[in-house]
Amino acid sequence: MRWCRFQDKEAASYGIIEGDDVIAISGSPFEQYQRTGERHPLNSVKLLVPVIPPTFYAAGLNYREHVIESAAKRGEEPKFPPNADIGYRANNALIENGGAIVIPKDASEVVQYEGELVAVIGKRCKNVSEAEALDYVFGYTIGNDVSERRWQHGDRTLWRGKNTDTFKPMGPWIETDLDPATLTVAVRLNGREVASYRVADAIFSVQTFISRMSQYVTLYPGDVIWMGTDGAPENMKHGDVVEVDIPGIGVLSNPVVRER
Amino acid sequence: MRWCRFQDKEAASYGIIEGDDVIAISGSPFEQYQRTGERHPLNSVKLLVPVIPPTFYAAGLNYREHVIESAAKRGEEPKFPPNADIGYRANNALIENGGAIVIPKDASEVVQYEGELVAVIGKRCKNVSEAEALDYVFGYTIGNDVSERRWQHGDRTLWRGKNTDTFKPMGPWIETDLDPATLTVAVRLNGREVASYRVADAIFSVQTFISRMSQYVTLYPGDVIWMGTDGAPENMKHGDVVEVDIPGIGVLSNPVVRER
Repeated sequence: MRWCRFQDKEAASYGIIEGDDVIAISGSPFEQYQRTGERHPLNSVKLLVPVIPPTFYAAGLNYREHVIESAAKRGEEPKFPPNADIGYRANNALIENGGAIVIPKDASEVVQYEGELVAVIGKRCKNVSEAEALDYVFGYTIGNDVSERRWQHGDRTLWRGKNTDTFKPMGPWIETDLDPATLTVAVRLNGREVASYRVADAIFSVQTFISRMSQYVTLYPGDVIWMGTDGAPENMKHGDVVEVDIPGIGVLSNPVVRER
Repeated sequence: MRWCRFQDKEAASYGIIEGDDVIAISGSPFEQYQRTGERHPLNSVKLLVPVIPPTFYAAGLNYREHVIESAAKRGEEPKFPPNADIGYRANNALIENGGAIVIPKDASEVVQYEGELVAVIGKRCKNVSEAEALDYVFGYTIGNDVSERRWQHGDRTLWRGKNTDTFKPMGPWIETDLDPATLTVAVRLNGREVASYRVADAIFSVQTFISRMSQYVTLYPGDVIWMGTDGAPENMKHGDVVEVDIPGIGVLSNPVVRER
């Protein structure tokens, strides 16, 4: 099943995508909902970020090649994360499929994409085992963890390196009933494939993260967990278009603009 | 003006505290609201966390003595933050005034309070100067940035060191029309004063943080900024009661329980 959030007159509404149509629902996909009689052609609606998370989690380092390449660029030895210690991103930075990634005037040239699988939590959970963890996932979407590397490594925190407005494209929608371990992620920059990896190669799986997180924190419906990326990203510049493609979910596509 | 959020039958409602009464409002204090005819004695209502922030910001290191003492305990030289680089905390960890801080079974003994001023954003802002920054503050409340130091320093991120469920008491209410620079913060452990400092001694002020943050991120109504703490906190143990007192706002009081 494919869920979206879209602009419905003045308000944001959740909808179900069936074929080329969006069926508006009342209520929330995370609680009770009912299909309404309202049906729109998909290409006529403005899709929004598919969920605004109560808490926005991100794995950060979670693929070996990415850890190795990132460390090499800084002239350091790679340090693989010993445990599934989750990190955070911020809602201000979220933009929808098609929205512009806006690079601030004073950013360096080293502004990079990171194409990622995103797990969306469906049910409140605490103290769940790895075996049952995926039962608490509502579905999956796609994220681009845009990063300004000078700020990422130079500031005391990741605030503007990772969370500058527009640096977190997410969408275009949420697909349910997927096995994350079977998925692949590809990134294209202006149509040229610049990354391709298997989700199954992650150091820690979706279920490992959810189970470990839930030993200490309660996960809530709508929380998102960005699963990290593999490989060594390239820089993006004004005029580029970056696409993250996860077959089985869809394509998250965003243009890049540098502020003058 | 004193704003609270309270349990009103099945739902959470905002209210205005006048004397010993809570006047329920319809709508939101951050948008349009109207007083309803509903009035309850303050001591008869269950107060909730006064706002659930879209983004939960925290300054972390922002007072010299705290930086010096924390570094000394780790046998390191103090490193003062060179810029107002904001960090994050997570909503799952929020509890209300009176709620129990629950220390997990496997936590170390080094679980400590940090009494803090909290600024609550009232209006969307981007690119504001320090001179105008406080115009975007709705009011102030109190936070206790409970921290398990072994996890804080041993994990790759602050996730469970700072954001274990119940580790972020906030409340009891929001007071508007205050000058943060005139405020003092005291912490009492079982009635004994264990910390006392002036907000004006912060390395970076509320307006410095808001102005700098707003150069890169949009702040939204309801966002909270926890301003950091001064001094060297002590450990808390099962059976303790910890109070953070900011005269002009109120007292945030929470019991401490260790899971068996």
